[in-house]
Amino acid sequence: MRMRKLPWAEDFLNEQEVVVKEPAQYKGTWKEMLDCTCLHVEIGTGKGDYWTKMSQCYPDFGWIGVEKNSSVAALAVRKFVNMEGKKEHMRFIQDDAEEIAQWFAHGEVDVIHLNFSDPWPKKRAHKKRLSNHKFIAQYADILSDDGEIQMKTDNSSLFEYSIMEFQNEGWYLHDFSVDYRRVEHDEDVITEYENRFMERNQPIYRAVWKKHPVVKKEN
Amino acid sequence: MRMRKLPWAEDFLNEQEVVVKEPAQYKGTWKEMLDCTCLHVEIGTGKGDYWTKMSQCYPDFGWIGVEKNSSVAALAVRKFVNMEGKKEHMRFIQDDAEEIAQWFAHGEVDVIHLNFSDPWPKKRAHKKRLSNHKFIAQYADILSDDGEIQMKTDNSSLFEYSIMEFQNEGWYLHDFSVDYRRVEHDEDVITEYENRFMERNQPIYRAVWKKHPVVKKEN
Ligand SMILES: C[S@@+](CC[C@H](N)C(=O)[O-])C[C@H]1O[C@@H](n2cnc3c(N)ncnc32)[C@H](O)[C@@H]1O
Ligand SMILES: C[S@@+](CC[C@H](N)C(=O)[O-])C[C@H]1O[C@@H](n2cnc3c(N)ncnc32)[C@H](O)[C@@H]1O
Repeated sequence: MRMRKLPWAEDFLNEQEVVVKEPAQYKGTWKEMLDCTCLHVEIGTGKGDYWTKMSQCYPDFGWIGVEKNSSVAALAVRKFVNMEGKKEHMRFIQDDAEEIAQWFAHGEVDVIHLNFSDPWPKKRAHKKRLSNHKFIAQYADILSDDGEIQMKTDNSSLFEYSIMEFQNEGWYLHDFSVDYRRVEHDEDVITEYENRFMERNQPIYRAVWKKHPVVKKEN
Repeated sequence: MRMRKLPWAEDFLNEQEVVVKEPAQYKGTWKEMLDCTCLHVEIGTGKGDYWTKMSQCYPDFGWIGVEKNSSVAALAVRKFVNMEGKKEHMRFIQDDAEEIAQWFAHGEVDVIHLNFSDPWPKKRAHKKRLSNHKFIAQYADILSDDGEIQMKTDNSSLFEYSIMEFQNEGWYLHDFSVDYRRVEHDEDVITEYENRFMERNQPIYRAVWKKHPVVKKEN
């Protein structure tokens, strides 16, 4: 998400209580802090549409948004500030998720959301992809036993890569769609990027992975 | 593939030597018969474009086409009869593949091709899909240890189903594409159905599965 630097972003973020300055400090205590039993983390919130709306659809869960770009993060937090509704179950981290396992204890997170993550098309930049095996190893650590990763993307190359990386790290697909918007989904939020691609009639790819195999049904 | 019944089909098929009447009889002897070390089987050849062209691109392999519909099969075999080139390494089976493990010995087949298989959209008909777990169990039996299944399809629902079925049967993706025709591929044959969907600018989905995991590379 290329955008011009907002001069007020850093100061604004510093002032807001929802923004957690040293996340590693709260390792192991997030659920208590947010008064929830199920913790959701979105990495790469962009301007915060999904983070703010999902937190209102599912107010019993804890919702942590992560965004490294300070100007974009400031827009997300401003959206939070201006919105009505329950807010105590939400936090924001303006930082790079590359050492996310420093912020959360083993098994502390229940769902990680990756929405329209940067595709990093060049091969030598693949390690920056949020579904690179080095990220996956950290997710494996911080996710609860039955926890899951939910990914949506418009980018076929990123999607193909992600399917292979998670498989090769020993994860299992629990849900898989090459055209997620072909059918309606309940209580679901369309992200800003998703909206753009839907307007252009491009397919949305989606996958949900867990650490354990799908329990088999007959037929 | 709905088409009118061709009155000459059955007689024609009976006359042609390339058509194997009782395939189970040759169980375990196909490679010897076709003088090859690598045996390819295509299930659901339709009118035989892929079977005839691939056999000419890869004349060192054995190529067996399978098609249950006798009228369609007759057109495939007529294509074979009229074509120039090497033919001794080819055979055709006009039958339903539902008991394919009766025709081939354990580990006898190296590659199975599933091109634009019938989608069977209704849930109760899913068991007829060529990637249903009952078919997969038979493929596991007849495929060699390092053998593979190659699937191409235009049908998102069939593709999603196939990805889940193979995973849940313990197979591994070795190649995976949600837009196979985005890039060029060497020595590759576009099937009749594939051509139609490409003309309409629809994406072609492709997957290659093996029984064993991908050997990991670093990065
Ligand atoms: C393409 S945007 C998508 C935004 C939003 N999720 C949506 O669907 O509209 C991806 C965002 O992820 C952020 N991002 C990429 N890598 C990140 C990382 N390692 N840590 C935190 N944020 C990251 C980028 O700064 C960018 O704002
Ligand atoms: C949609 S057509 C595709 C034809 C061709 N592969 C192509 O890509 O152009 C699928 C074909 O598979 C055949 N078929 C479906 N199930 C089969 C089975 N169980 N055994 C043999 N053939 C089958 C159908 O009769 C039909 O001709």
